Amino acid sequence: MLGTSRQHSHFNFNMSHASEISDGACDHVTKFRLVHADCTWSRQTADCQRVEGRLSDARIYESSSEDGVTWTVVSPVVFTYRVVQCERLLDASNDTLLFGHISSPTELQALKNNSEVMKRFIVIDETVNDLYGSQVAAYFQARGVTYKILPLPTTEENKSMTLVTRILEEVHKFGIDRRTEPIIAIGGGVCLDITGLAASLYRRRTPYIRVPTTLLAYIDASVGAKTGVNFANCKNKLGSYIPPVAAFLDRSFLCTLPRRHISNGMAEMLKMALMKHRGLFELLEKDGRHLLDSSFQSSGRMPENIHGDAASVSTRLAIETMLEELAPNLWEDDLDRLVDFGHIISPELEMKILPALLHGEAVNIDMAFMVYVAHERGFLTEEEKRRIIVCMRSLDLPVWHSDCTLDLVLKSLTERLKHSGGFLRTPLPTALGKARIFNDTEESIVCQAFKKWCDEQCETTMKPE
Amino acid sequence: MLGTSRQHSHFNFNMSHASEISDGACDHVTKFRLVHADCTWSRQTADCQRVEGRLSDARIYESSSEDGVTWTVVSPVVFTYRVVQCERLLDASNDTLLFGHISSPTELQALKNNSEVMKRFIVIDETVNDLYGSQVAAYFQARGVTYKILPLPTTEENKSMTLVTRILEEVHKFGIDRRTEPIIAIGGGVCLDITGLAASLYRRRTPYIRVPTTLLAYIDASVGAKTGVNFANCKNKLGSYIPPVAAFLDRSFLCTLPRRHISNGMAEMLKMALMKHRGLFELLEKDGRHLLDSSFQSSGRMPENIHGDAASVSTRLAIETMLEELAPNLWEDDLDRLVDFGHIISPELEMKILPALLHGEAVNIDMAFMVYVAHERGFLTEEEKRRIIVCMRSLDLPVWHSDCTLDLVLKSLTERLKHSGGFLRTPLPTALGKARIFNDTEESIVCQAFKKWCDEQCETTMKPE
Repeated sequence: MLGTSRQHSHFNFNMSHASEISDGACDHVTKFRLVHADCTWSRQTADCQRVEGRLSDARIYESSSEDGVTWTVVSPVVFTYRVVQCERLLDASNDTLLFGHISSPTELQALKNNSEVMKRFIVIDETVNDLYGSQVAAYFQARGVTYKILPLPTTEENKSMTLVTRILEEVHKFGIDRRTEPIIAIGGGVCLDITGLAASLYRRRTPYIRVPTTLLAYIDASVGAKTGVNFANCKNKLGSYIPPVAAFLDRSFLCTLPRRHISNGMAEMLKMALMKHRGLFELLEKDGRHLLDSSFQSSGRMPENIHGDAASVSTRLAIETMLEELAPNLWEDDLDRLVDFGHIISPELEMKILPALLHGEAVNIDMAFMVYVAHERGFLTEEEKRRIIVCMRSLDLPVWHSDCTLDLVLKSLTERLKHSGGFLRTPLPTALGKARIFNDTEESIVCQAFKKWCDEQCETTMKPE
Repeated sequence: MLGTSRQHSHFNFNMSHASEISDGACDHVTKFRLVHADCTWSRQTADCQRVEGRLSDARIYESSSEDGVTWTVVSPVVFTYRVVQCERLLDASNDTLLFGHISSPTELQALKNNSEVMKRFIVIDETVNDLYGSQVAAYFQARGVTYKILPLPTTEENKSMTLVTRILEEVHKFGIDRRTEPIIAIGGGVCLDITGLAASLYRRRTPYIRVPTTLLAYIDASVGAKTGVNFANCKNKLGSYIPPVAAFLDRSFLCTLPRRHISNGMAEMLKMALMKHRGLFELLEKDGRHLLDSSFQSSGRMPENIHGDAASVSTRLAIETMLEELAPNLWEDDLDRLVDFGHIISPELEMKILPALLHGEAVNIDMAFMVYVAHERGFLTEEEKRRIIVCMRSLDLPVWHSDCTLDLVLKSLTERLKHSGGFLRTPLPTALGKARIFNDTEESIVCQAFKKWCDEQCETTMKPE
């Protein structure tokens, strides 16, 4: 062994752990990098200059004491996925659904030249199947693909391992190539989440594709890495962080979506606006009602409209701001997350009165309350608070709920404290389109905000029908 | 948008994909890096010099066409875990079982200073519980830890989602802190695999610790990231790649292990020897029989023995060679894997006659056959082939099996071809302790090797009792 090697290295991840390994308590830490030659990986110390062959980003740190040997493995795994905003996804002339997940032109050409019949397994929500199932079938028929469509009742109440197992059994029976034949999920967030979990379990990871048909899934579930099911009456208690190979976002699905579900999705859009994009907030203030009325369908068919109208701009900004926050924290190792805004109290509330509230509605009630907390702490002016609530109402979103009691609020904050490493980590708006994360919100402030929230909002809000 | 940015960047992962994104078919690719300031992540193009705040290793590539916008997210997730060879793990004075997973001295001190009662959930194999359960209980009692021990019948036949769900229900009922209270698995590979899968699903990832009690798990399951269960009569068809936070390896558990299970583990040790370490092979040739007879217990209690005897040296070499191969390929993205030696035919064979063969026995039959293939192709001399088979026999490992028919061999190779991206990727020894991966083994060679293997070995081998 060659003792601690503290030379400058090629290794420039943000790895606080790794640096503690070399600088910490152990006296004799040897750092190894790994070199690949002749099909074989070999360890090399950093001061050894014989680097011939491919170098891995992984490292192994070895330390010995009289009790034994400790190896610390530090290994980065790189996740790559595509989010594609597109049109006419189910049009047989459009390659996206079949090949849009492939970013390498070489790989794409090889696949297109391959004469073997391709296979695709599609999980689709039952309701979506009634509306679009025949188009999906027609697409794959026209492309000469062997396919199997599995329609499932993907409601929040059914979001459990039972459906995941059902998918796994059918996938296994159908048979797919683990590497090249991604499972496709078409539906709302629940459908995408359960299919994602099934895919991430099958052969320890099978690629999958998300095609959201609700606005909520378009903005939220499609963009990140999370999969999940409910368990023991707790929301998304089981799951994984495995991103899809691609998400294909086609706004035309939204034209068949009930109005209440458009509002539902706009809550998550408003979340990103409040947290980090004043422009998006002002757009929602100004055009949100119209977007709701028109189900995010573009007014014209001219190319300039596609890139310029409120529907395109707002969805694009929602996705870009979401990706900004998710990409650097794909596995949620960092517990300070702006995207948790609206998700502190809402999980309790949503599960408590399931299925009375949709996810976005519960999120909006949480956000409305937190706006009162932010105002109580002096971060938002009365006028800013008013504008936010008015905007929420214009989107037909509930801003108060009788089941969101002070008890539930305090219980949620206690849970948060327990599961976030002893800190509250509450995102709060500090201006329109700006926010910070706070650990020091006192119970008295929460109680005052709650009282004011009830006084001002309970009279004027009705439960959504 | 600012057009394609091809400047030299800080980003030096081995990401073939990423380079294809910028150099590929799209005309207008903008590369963004992500900067964290004021609790908020923002995109910045590489040519923008205003980097203030923490820079992420993740990147977002954006491209537009008239059809829409594509974002490609490239996000590395760093996995860190420890493998610790230690002694007296269940001795209450030994900190390892409670704190050995923590590499940061600061974090360790904080935990030790914390006055709150710690909790630990332990999954243990039923048989291991009969032997060591009271010692495990005594350990946590002595340390003032609130604990729950869940004994389970973790046999290969029971390795299914049913047991995983059982663990999840009990963990949920018991209640643990997702961040700081790792689930502990004590047992053989099946126990470690199912507990690992349960932990990786619970709250999308809960830390877990592996304590192997069999030689096979000590050498193999403990060292890598894989978890899994059997599904639809296929071995490890469901699972994940989530490493434990730590694996604690204490050889003293092996003294209660049946002799056949010592042989079983030695097969995986021999695999690493044949693939990449002639020294380990020669050690097994010379001292393997004694290691089997003594269940890998050290002969003396002097420190020099601990570091110098065959039991320490061989286990250490097995782990080091295994870690070398696993660390750079934690998620098995690279399909060319030396550690697959012995795992081409054995999964079929093992599942076909379950529970007649133990895993390592099936692996050894596979390896013995592949040695014949390597000899048939001229990679191994007759003498080298003979030495390997003699060594296998000296470890009481089966080198042939009547259920390993030519049909099964050819079927396994066809499966391999299908699931390995169209290549056979067969690791074959090319000398003692050296190997390469081959795609060009012809069926005629396989058949000739099979015939010779049967001629020479079927007479002399008995099925293990």
